[in-house]
Amino acid sequence: MLTFIGLGLWDEKDISLKGLEAIKKADVAYAEFYTSRLMGATLEKLEALYGKPIKVLDREDVEQHPEDSILKDAVDKDVVFLTGGDAMVATTHVDLRLRAQKMGIQTAVIHGASIASAVCGVTGLQNYRFGKSATIAFPYRSIVSETPYDTIKMNKANGLHTLLFLDIDKAQGYMTINKGIELLLLVEERRKEGVLRDALGVGVARAGSPEPCVKAARLDSLKSYDFGGPLHILVIPAELHFLEEEALEALAGLRL
Amino acid sequence: MLTFIGLGLWDEKDISLKGLEAIKKADVAYAEFYTSRLMGATLEKLEALYGKPIKVLDREDVEQHPEDSILKDAVDKDVVFLTGGDAMVATTHVDLRLRAQKMGIQTAVIHGASIASAVCGVTGLQNYRFGKSATIAFPYRSIVSETPYDTIKMNKANGLHTLLFLDIDKAQGYMTINKGIELLLLVEERRKEGVLRDALGVGVARAGSPEPCVKAARLDSLKSYDFGGPLHILVIPAELHFLEEEALEALAGLRL
Repeated sequence: MLTFIGLGLWDEKDISLKGLEAIKKADVAYAEFYTSRLMGATLEKLEALYGKPIKVLDREDVEQHPEDSILKDAVDKDVVFLTGGDAMVATTHVDLRLRAQKMGIQTAVIHGASIASAVCGVTGLQNYRFGKSATIAFPYRSIVSETPYDTIKMNKANGLHTLLFLDIDKAQGYMTINKGIELLLLVEERRKEGVLRDALGVGVARAGSPEPCVKAARLDSLKSYDFGGPLHILVIPAELHFLEEEALEALAGLRL
Repeated sequence: MLTFIGLGLWDEKDISLKGLEAIKKADVAYAEFYTSRLMGATLEKLEALYGKPIKVLDREDVEQHPEDSILKDAVDKDVVFLTGGDAMVATTHVDLRLRAQKMGIQTAVIHGASIASAVCGVTGLQNYRFGKSATIAFPYRSIVSETPYDTIKMNKANGLHTLLFLDIDKAQGYMTINKGIELLLLVEERRKEGVLRDALGVGVARAGSPEPCVKAARLDSLKSYDFGGPLHILVIPAELHFLEEEALEALAGLRL
């Protein structure tokens, strides 16, 4: 049996009661923190609350040879697999679940809070006005991906907001909102299509924490704003509905 | 002080530890269940777990005169406002939060699991391939809204999946997947644009429960499938990525 459990957004207390019960009665607990991370918790805090040691897997363990660890255990043990945010949102988790099912292992999911819905709560932007999301990745051999720019362009043309996840990299760490904006503006400079001309951005840092930082402004001013520690995400909104504008003024200090 | 708390998807144990602590120490607890509902819990079960009475508000209380109840209390008391799913995803909650802020009431959000991310976990459809979402509403004076059809059309043209929320109505109850498909096909029949010709649908019932029902098939066969009790949601996917197709075969019984 393999149960995927989403730990939520910020610290060890964002897990659901149902998730906590499932960990407590499991034989073995694994976790991965390369797709998302609880910045407000340490491994020690998680283990203390769950009353159980947690084996942290890296990307290679999960994607290359899960049958050496988690899948081997799940054949005849009650195994939980913990991740930040909601469970099974990352493709790599879907792949793991399918591998498990092929081996005849029963699987289940216990959901947790995700930035995908939390972004509405903290900014006041409306859920049904979000289009496709994208990730701003660190440049690979100094090549800056144009995918997020194209996604924003498509969404704006359809009157929709774009949620931009910011890369987490083993060597380079957590991408900041500032770096994300810088990369977007590099593409704008190259393409000169005006997608980001006078564009607003809404930056959110540490969603789910007692002191999330939410700030909305034009990108050229937002790119030097100090958001503090990770995790960061960025929204490039389409034209605002009046209630959204009012919300960004009240909740994100927007001054137009 | 007014704290918005998302209760998650299914029953009283989907709340986070953080949310539970906040309710326990609050002076007054309000809830609304007209935008979403925990089908696996009763008010009695919630009150027993929280150790506190819950005042359930209807749409009018929240939208027309919140200053008579929740806002009045929040001026000098520690008040929590409970909702199904994640907190503050519905526009009506954003409006309430802005009213509170205008009255000088401090506000906060404690997030919960939402169907917006859970749908990826239960179906294996990839998060970044979802476009704008829409709601299929019960016909008003026998007029069937074409908005969901237009949303599916736009998303499909962009290679994106569409998440369709199904209406909750005081008189008509919880819309089923079957009814939702019937309403979409009525629009197809009228418009004849072929948006739904041979289209697949993925129906999800009771996400977050121990026995969610997840079924993928062509709409004409899905429309008579028995999904059991509420809540239901429907996804009209765009062309599937091979990993998504594999996931729908394994997790949703898809046979192409």
